[in-house]
This record gives sequence, C-alpha cells and structure tokens, in this order.
Amino acid sequence: MAQHKPTLYIIKLGGGLIDQPAELDLFLASYAGLLPTSIETTPAYTLLVHGGGKLATDMATKLGIPQQLKEGRRITDSETIKLVTMVYAGYINKNIVASLQAKGCNALGLSGADGNLIAAKKRAPHPIDYGWVGDPVSVNTDLLDALLKNNTTPVIAPITHNKEGQLLNTNADTIAQTIAVAMSTHYRVELIYTFETRGVLADLSDPDSVIASITKDSYRNLKENNSIHTGMIPKLDNAFAALDAGVSAVRIGHAQELALLLKGQAGTTLTHA
Amino acid sequence: MAQHKPTLYIIKLGGGLIDQPAELDLFLASYAGLLPTSIETTPAYTLLVHGGGKLATDMATKLGIPQQLKEGRRITDSETIKLVTMVYAGYINKNIVASLQAKGCNALGLSGADGNLIAAKKRAPHPIDYGWVGDPVSVNTDLLDALLKNNTTPVIAPITHNKEGQLLNTNADTIAQTIAVAMSTHYRVELIYTFETRGVLADLSDPDSVIASITKDSYRNLKENNSIHTGMIPKLDNAFAALDAGVSAVRIGHAQELALLLKGQAGTTLTHA
Repeated sequence: MAQHKPTLYIIKLGGGLIDQPAELDLFLASYAGLLPTSIETTPAYTLLVHGGGKLATDMATKLGIPQQLKEGRRITDSETIKLVTMVYAGYINKNIVASLQAKGCNALGLSGADGNLIAAKKRAPHPIDYGWVGDPVSVNTDLLDALLKNNTTPVIAPITHNKEGQLLNTNADTIAQTIAVAMSTHYRVELIYTFETRGVLADLSDPDSVIASITKDSYRNLKENNSIHTGMIPKLDNAFAALDAGVSAVRIGHAQELALLLKGQAGTTLTHA
Repeated sequence: MAQHKPTLYIIKLGGGLIDQPAELDLFLASYAGLLPTSIETTPAYTLLVHGGGKLATDMATKLGIPQQLKEGRRITDSETIKLVTMVYAGYINKNIVASLQAKGCNALGLSGADGNLIAAKKRAPHPIDYGWVGDPVSVNTDLLDALLKNNTTPVIAPITHNKEGQLLNTNADTIAQTIAVAMSTHYRVELIYTFETRGVLADLSDPDSVIASITKDSYRNLKENNSIHTGMIPKLDNAFAALDAGVSAVRIGHAQELALLLKGQAGTTLTHA
C-alpha cells in the first residue's frame, strides 16, 4: 500500500540562512516553486520547518538578557523563552510566511502551541537544567493533513508547548524529525535537511566530495573507517532512527540546491538499503 | 434565510488586559468556557482578536528604538514593524494560544499573512506618513470557515501583509470589524468589543451607568443631546458602519463580563433597530 501514499517533503531550513536576507529570499523562491511543477511525483506536498539563527542572540545582547551556555548548549531561562518566542514564532516565522505568500505559496505559520501541533515535555533538570526546553511527545497530524489538503503550506517555528500553558524551546531538527515520523503513517515522507554545505562530505577540505548515497550498511562501514566527520554522526544517527521509524528517505544538502536535492540529483540521500 | 446561519462571536480583547497576567488569565478562562455550554444558540463559533498592550512600547525603550507619535498616533518605522511583529504575532499571540490550549480551547494563532488571512494596503503617506501601517483590503473567509468547522478557534494578531512580502501594523479594532463584515456573508455575526469598562456610559463618573441598548435612532438622539463621551463616538460610528455592512449586533462591555455580554445581559448592545 505504501506506493499509494502521497509524498510529503518535510524541509528543514538551516539556521545559517535565516541571517542572510538575500540567500533566504533565493531559498524561499526555490521553495515556493517546488510544487507542482518541479517534482514529477503527484500528489506531493511540502512543509517547512525553520530554526532560529543569530537574531535571538543579538536581541538578547541588546536587551541585556545574559545567555548562559552549559556544555556548549544554550539554557532557556524565563527571559529567554519570551525572547525566542518573539523572534522564532514572531519575527522569523511571519517574515518567511509573508515572503512565501508574495511568491505565490499559500504559507501559514505555526508554533507547536497552535492547534496543539506539537505537545512537548519539559526536559528533566538532570544532569543539566536546560530551562524551558521541551522534547516533543505528540504531533497533531490531523491539523497538518487538513492544511496540506487545503492547499496550505505549514511553516513551523521551533517553539512547542506543554499543554499547561507553558511555551517551550525545541530544537528545529528534532521538530522536523518528529513531524516526519508522525506523518509517515499517512504519507511517504522524505525529510530534507538543508545547510550551507552540499551534503555529507568524504573530505571536509573538499566541499564537492559529497557522498551521494548512504545506506545503513554503508554507514556502518563509513563509521568504522572513520570516514564521517564526528560532528555529523549524531545527525546521521538521528536520520537513520527516522528511517527506522517509517520515514522513506532523508536527504542532506545545500539550501540553494533544493529542487535538485528533492529529486536526489544533489546532496546526500540516506535510505535503509 | 438569515436565521439559518450559524452564529459567530468575534471577540476583541482590549489592549489593557494584555498587560495584566491575572486579569488576562481570567478572561481567557471565561473565553475557553463560552462554547458550547454557556451559550444556548447552536451551532455557534467564536474567534478572538487581540491588540498589543504596552509590551511593545516597553521593548522599544529597552531596545533603544525611538517611538514617534504624530497627532497622538504611533508611527510604525522599519524597526517598529519588526518589534510589533515579534511582540504581537509572537509573544502575545503564542502565549494566548498556549493558555487557551491549557484551558481546553483548541486555539490557533494567525497573523494576517498566515494563509493570506488579511491582505492590506499600506496607508498613503499623506497627510501623515504612518509608516508600515496597513488598511485591510481582503479577508480569507474560507480559511476561517475551515478552521471554525474543524473545531479550531482562530486567535488573530493585529499584523497584516501587503501580498508583496511586507508585514504591516493594523489596528486591532479595525481587524475585528473587517473580519466581522466579511464573515457576515456566511454567519450571523456578533462583534464584541471588550474593555475595562462595563459598556457605553451615560455618565462617565458613574461606571454603572451603562446604556443597555443603542439603536441607530437612539444613537442620533444621544449624540444630539451630547450624552455620549466624544472619545466613544468614532468607535460607535464604526460599530454602526459594521451593522450597516451586515453584522447583526455589536456589543461593548467589560472583559470580565464576557459570558453575560454575549447573552446581552451586560454591556451595551448596538443594533439597527
């Protein structure tokens, strides 16, 4: 039955692009042009998940909100959750939506609180207290399904809620993956991570050394041969976990090669076999 | 046929309440409890429009964004539209949504850009250049209709877009009225303005001197007798314009008397006759 499911491309926009207006505009033009013309498979749908970029940090500096880092990760204290809600779910989300609308894509922005899209649980304060950070526990797939089938493109900000009135800061990669897994019940889901690099590189010093395809078996070999940059390993481990949980393919590549990436003609494609 | 239309209560939350967490929480609890139990007419729907409050002004001060006023009205320069997008469509909107979700109301926050809900035209720069301020030109009533019928309660922030990628600052009363008129094609619409006063007062020094009912005829008399506070006249003129354009009733009253207000048991009700 799997081949009868419509395809859903869940596209994660890398944080780096958000701070570069001209690059972001190019990406959004490419995104708005994806369907229905550029992709041959029909019916197909897309949704966009965005991260935060540097604006929240800049705003925190201007507002005098000290940003604490523990083991390299940001702590979301009470002032910071207010700030990231403003920046991620307000400024960034609404500007992306307005830009997509101008490009003919009927975008609609959502945080995880909206329509109870993503309920999350505040992370336990041990061993590190990350503050108002949440890990997703459920996705309202009916809401996404209704929007997609009503010709609306969800644009999702990395803010969730705990169903008790508290907003929570949630990693955008995690949101993309969680939605991908949840939606794979009704869709053939491809999860697309865009960055400012062209894919998983065999040689970090050569930006064109993209590994076109990685399967579970070849990933094991690449790891044993130390051929994967250690920084990529958690991302790839998560990608294979998503494949195990029902996602059909994970693609990793450059934001400005989006159309090619969706066709498997650029970037790195991860599949089970 | 009019009696067969479902009722839609469009409720405008006054700006003053937004800055008072305990009062806001009471209001939202009352709002969440409105349907289906408190109102006898069925089917009936509600949506909420909120304003801005003082937070944007406080943030502007902290961020060193000078706020210009001309003839008592705020000018929305480039930094200010960023700020109000963050505060109105981000912080305030998402906190109201999360709070309503916690209270069992399936709220979903929208700006005018989301799903092209409200397209607006930048106000002409003569005689006063208000900056990035927009006057509504269209409402996506299909989107609201689909959300309402899918058991979702729209929560609308006073930010619109010009369909060319630019977000615009729009008065929340105007948004409520514009949506009310547009939705009156398919619904019997009641437009409810909530404030921190109990209604239109016959005597400003007596907070209980609420005029329970004003018709077009009695309004003319009240104005001729100088019985209406001049500050209320533009609001009431707009309310009668909404009635002329298809809205069934306009109710004005205290935010903490919401359930009574909807039943016409508190506040001031404006009707044609």
